[in-house]
Amino acid sequence: MKNAIEKIAGELRKILGPDRVISDPDILGAYSADETPDCTGKAELIVRPESPKEVSSVMKACHEAGVKVVPRGAGTGVTGGAVPVEGGVVLSLERMNRILEIDLENMIAVVEPGVITGRLQEALRAEGLLYPPDPASLDSCSIGGNVAENAGGPRAVKYGTTKDYVIGLEFVTPEGEIMTAGGKIVKNASGYNLIGILAGSEGTLAVITKIWLRLLPLPLHSIDALMAFSSIEEAIDAVRSILVKRIVPAAIEFMEKDAIDLVARHGRGIPYPDAGAHLLVQLDGSSPDFLHDELEKLSKAAGIDPDSVLVAESDIQRERLWKARRSIREAIRAESPVFLAEDCVVPCALIPQYLRSVKTFLGEKKLRSIMFGHAGDGNVHMDVLKGDMDCGVWKGILPEIKKGIYRLAIGLGGTITGEHGIGHIRKDYLPLAMSDREIELLRRIKNAFDPRGILNPGKIF
Amino acid sequence: MKNAIEKIAGELRKILGPDRVISDPDILGAYSADETPDCTGKAELIVRPESPKEVSSVMKACHEAGVKVVPRGAGTGVTGGAVPVEGGVVLSLERMNRILEIDLENMIAVVEPGVITGRLQEALRAEGLLYPPDPASLDSCSIGGNVAENAGGPRAVKYGTTKDYVIGLEFVTPEGEIMTAGGKIVKNASGYNLIGILAGSEGTLAVITKIWLRLLPLPLHSIDALMAFSSIEEAIDAVRSILVKRIVPAAIEFMEKDAIDLVARHGRGIPYPDAGAHLLVQLDGSSPDFLHDELEKLSKAAGIDPDSVLVAESDIQRERLWKARRSIREAIRAESPVFLAEDCVVPCALIPQYLRSVKTFLGEKKLRSIMFGHAGDGNVHMDVLKGDMDCGVWKGILPEIKKGIYRLAIGLGGTITGEHGIGHIRKDYLPLAMSDREIELLRRIKNAFDPRGILNPGKIF
Repeated sequence: MKNAIEKIAGELRKILGPDRVISDPDILGAYSADETPDCTGKAELIVRPESPKEVSSVMKACHEAGVKVVPRGAGTGVTGGAVPVEGGVVLSLERMNRILEIDLENMIAVVEPGVITGRLQEALRAEGLLYPPDPASLDSCSIGGNVAENAGGPRAVKYGTTKDYVIGLEFVTPEGEIMTAGGKIVKNASGYNLIGILAGSEGTLAVITKIWLRLLPLPLHSIDALMAFSSIEEAIDAVRSILVKRIVPAAIEFMEKDAIDLVARHGRGIPYPDAGAHLLVQLDGSSPDFLHDELEKLSKAAGIDPDSVLVAESDIQRERLWKARRSIREAIRAESPVFLAEDCVVPCALIPQYLRSVKTFLGEKKLRSIMFGHAGDGNVHMDVLKGDMDCGVWKGILPEIKKGIYRLAIGLGGTITGEHGIGHIRKDYLPLAMSDREIELLRRIKNAFDPRGILNPGKIF
Repeated sequence: MKNAIEKIAGELRKILGPDRVISDPDILGAYSADETPDCTGKAELIVRPESPKEVSSVMKACHEAGVKVVPRGAGTGVTGGAVPVEGGVVLSLERMNRILEIDLENMIAVVEPGVITGRLQEALRAEGLLYPPDPASLDSCSIGGNVAENAGGPRAVKYGTTKDYVIGLEFVTPEGEIMTAGGKIVKNASGYNLIGILAGSEGTLAVITKIWLRLLPLPLHSIDALMAFSSIEEAIDAVRSILVKRIVPAAIEFMEKDAIDLVARHGRGIPYPDAGAHLLVQLDGSSPDFLHDELEKLSKAAGIDPDSVLVAESDIQRERLWKARRSIREAIRAESPVFLAEDCVVPCALIPQYLRSVKTFLGEKKLRSIMFGHAGDGNVHMDVLKGDMDCGVWKGILPEIKKGIYRLAIGLGGTITGEHGIGHIRKDYLPLAMSDREIELLRRIKNAFDPRGILNPGKIF
C-alpha cells in the first residue's frame, strides 16, 4: 500500500498543486480520527479539492491505482464514518464551503458540502427562510456530512431529517464520474431516487460535491419552554400524553437529571431549576395566540401547572436553554473521556418502556448512563460512561453492553441507530437489525456504485 | 415463453389454489393495460396472492423459471408502469387490501399495498389524522402503486409526496426473499435507505407487500377558494407573486380555460365562473382567523379583489370545487380518447416561461393542449390532444412533440416527469434527462435487486 500511496501522491500533486496534498504527519494525525470515542485510523495522505472536477480527477486517479479514499466533512461524526480505518487518502471537502446561491423566488439554497450547517442557517434566517435540521453539532458540522449521515436533530419531530430537504445532489462516483440527481425541482419521478439512497449512505457510495436544499418560510413565532419533572419516567410519560393529544411541537427534548448536572458541573451556569428530569419544548407557527394556547394544552397534558413552565423571554434566554441541551455530550466527554454514545430509536410511545429496560440492564452491570434526546420521535440518546473502570474490563464488556442496548430497542420494533449511522463502530452489530440477505442486498448496492470497493471501506458492513 | 408460462401455471396453482391463478382471456385482456393512452401489453397469466409469503412463493417460482413478472396495484398509472409489455405473469396486489393498523399513539398506519388511497384517507380522517398525498386518482388508485410511483398531488406544495410519509416497507425481492426496511420508527440510520430507493422505482426493484406510513394530525381548519383570472399567464404570474410573499398554501392548482370548459362539457355542471384561467387554492392550519388573513394576503398578492374570491362554504362545495379539478383528465379522455399526458417539472418561478414556450412550440405544430396542474411545486400537467388528426400522422410526430416538451423543461433546469414516472412510454426519452453513465448507474442498481431481470421489464430504461 505504501508504494501505491507514494506513487499516487505525485499524481495528486499534479492535479491539485503541492499545497493541497498533505503528508505532514501532525496533520495526518488530526485527520485520522473524528469525534468518535476510541476510534482512530491512519490517514496516509490528505487532499483538499476545491471543485467537483478536482474531486473527479482525484477519484479517477485513486480508482485507477486501487487506493482507498475516505471522504470527510467537518469530522464531527460519532460512529467513525470519516475515520480512515483501512488507511488511504482522506478527501477533505473543507475547501468546498461556499453558499452558491440562496434562491428567494424558489426558496432553494444551493451549497457546497463543506458549508457549516449553522452558518447556512444564519444566512437563511437573514432572508426569512428556514432550513430545519438542527443536529447538536450544528456550529461545527458540515452540510455534506449531514447529507451523508442523514443528520436529524430536535426539530425532526415536526420537520423530519436532512433527506427531507435535499432535492438535488451533484456527486462524484468512486470511478470518478460527476453525476447529478434532481436540482431546483421539488418533485422528480425521472429514474430511481438516487438522492434517497445517497442520503445516509455514510460516504460509502459517492462523494457529494453540491447540494440543493428546499427551504421553508421562517415561522413567524416560536415559544421555547422548559418543564421540570420529578423523575425521568414522569417526563417521558408526559411526552406520551402530549403526543396523543395531537400536539406536534417543533421539538421536544428530554434530559435526565444526571445530564443537566454534568452540564452544570463542566460548563458555565445553566438556567435549569433543580429537578429529576426536564423537557425542553419548542412550538412554532404563525399565530402567537395559538402557540400560547398550545403551550397551555401541552402543559396540562403533561400534568404540569402552566405557571410553573419556564418560557424563554428573549433570544438570549432561548439560546441558553438550548445551549445546555447541546452541551450534554461535551460535558460527558469532560466527565469520562471514554464513553459509549448510542442513539437507538423505538416507536415513540414505547420510550418509557425502553428507558426502563435499558436502565435495568445497565444497572445490573453497575454502569452509569446518561439519557437524553428526542422524545418526540423515539430517538433516545444514551451515553454509557467508562468512568474509572479498568480499560481492559471496559473493552471486554463493550460488545455485550452494545448488544444488550440494541436488542432491547429491536425487541420493541426499533433499530440500533436513529441518526448517527452505523459507521465503523457498529458494523459488527448490523446483523442484529438486518438479515443476512438484507445485508447482502446492501452489499450489492454498494457494489453497483463502487465495484472496486475503494470508497470509505470498513464502514456499515 | 409459452411453454414456460404453461409450466409455471401449474406450479402457481399449487401455491395459490386454482381460483387465484387466472388465464381467462377476457380477464387477461383487462390486465394487459392500465390507464396509459395507447399502451397495451399481453398478460399471459394473472396471480392474486393474499400474503407476503404467497408473493414470495410466486416470485421464487417465476425467478427459478425465468418468467417475467409485472406487479400491479389498481392499474391507474399513466406511463404504462403496470403494463406487461413483454408478456409474463401479472402479479396483482388487489387482494392484499387491508388496513392492518391505525396506531393512534404513534400516529402511524400499517397497510397492505392494495388499499385504495382515498379509503385510507377517510378511515384516518375519522380518527383525526391526515395522510396528505392526494393524487387525482385517489378514489381508485392503491397505496402500493402510490409508493411504487412516488405519487404526489396538489397538496405536495406544502406536504411533499408519498415518499415523505413512508417510514417502513416490507417487500419481496425478485429472487423471492421477504425483506423489511424501517417500521414504526420515524428515524432510521441503520444501513442504506432502502425505502428511499424503492419509493418511485416503478415496480422494477421489488414487490411491496406492506407499508408503514407516518401521519399528521388533521389540520383543524382549512379554506378552499377559487380565483378567476383573465388569462393563464396572469394566473401563473399570480402564483409567483404569492410564493415570493412566503405564503405556503397546502395546494395551489392552475387550470386554463380550456380544461374547465372540457369538464363542463363532459361532466355535470361545475361551479366555476367563466374566466380565462383559474387558481384553486387550499390553505390549512390551526387558526381560522389566521387562515382568513392569509387568504386576504394571498388574494392581494395575486392582484385579485378578496371579495371576488369564491370561498367554499361547506364540505359539499369544497368537494365540488376539487372534483372539477380531478375530472380534467377524464374529460380530456372523453374529448379525445388518444392524447399525450405529460407532467414535466420546472423550478416554480419558471412556470410562466415554460408554459409560454410550450404553447408556442405546440402552436407551431397546430396541436391543441390543455394545461393544468400544481402551480406551487412546478409540476405542470399538460395533455396534448390527437383530436381528429390521422393516427399515422399522430404517431409519426409524437416523438418530436415529446422531445420538444421535455427539452424545454430540461432547458429551464427541470425534468421530464414530476410524478407520473418514466414507465414504459418515456423510457426512450430518459437519455434527454440523464447521461449514459447515470443511466448505467441506474441499471447497476436494478441489477443489484434483480440480477435475472425478471421484474417489470421494459420499464424506465
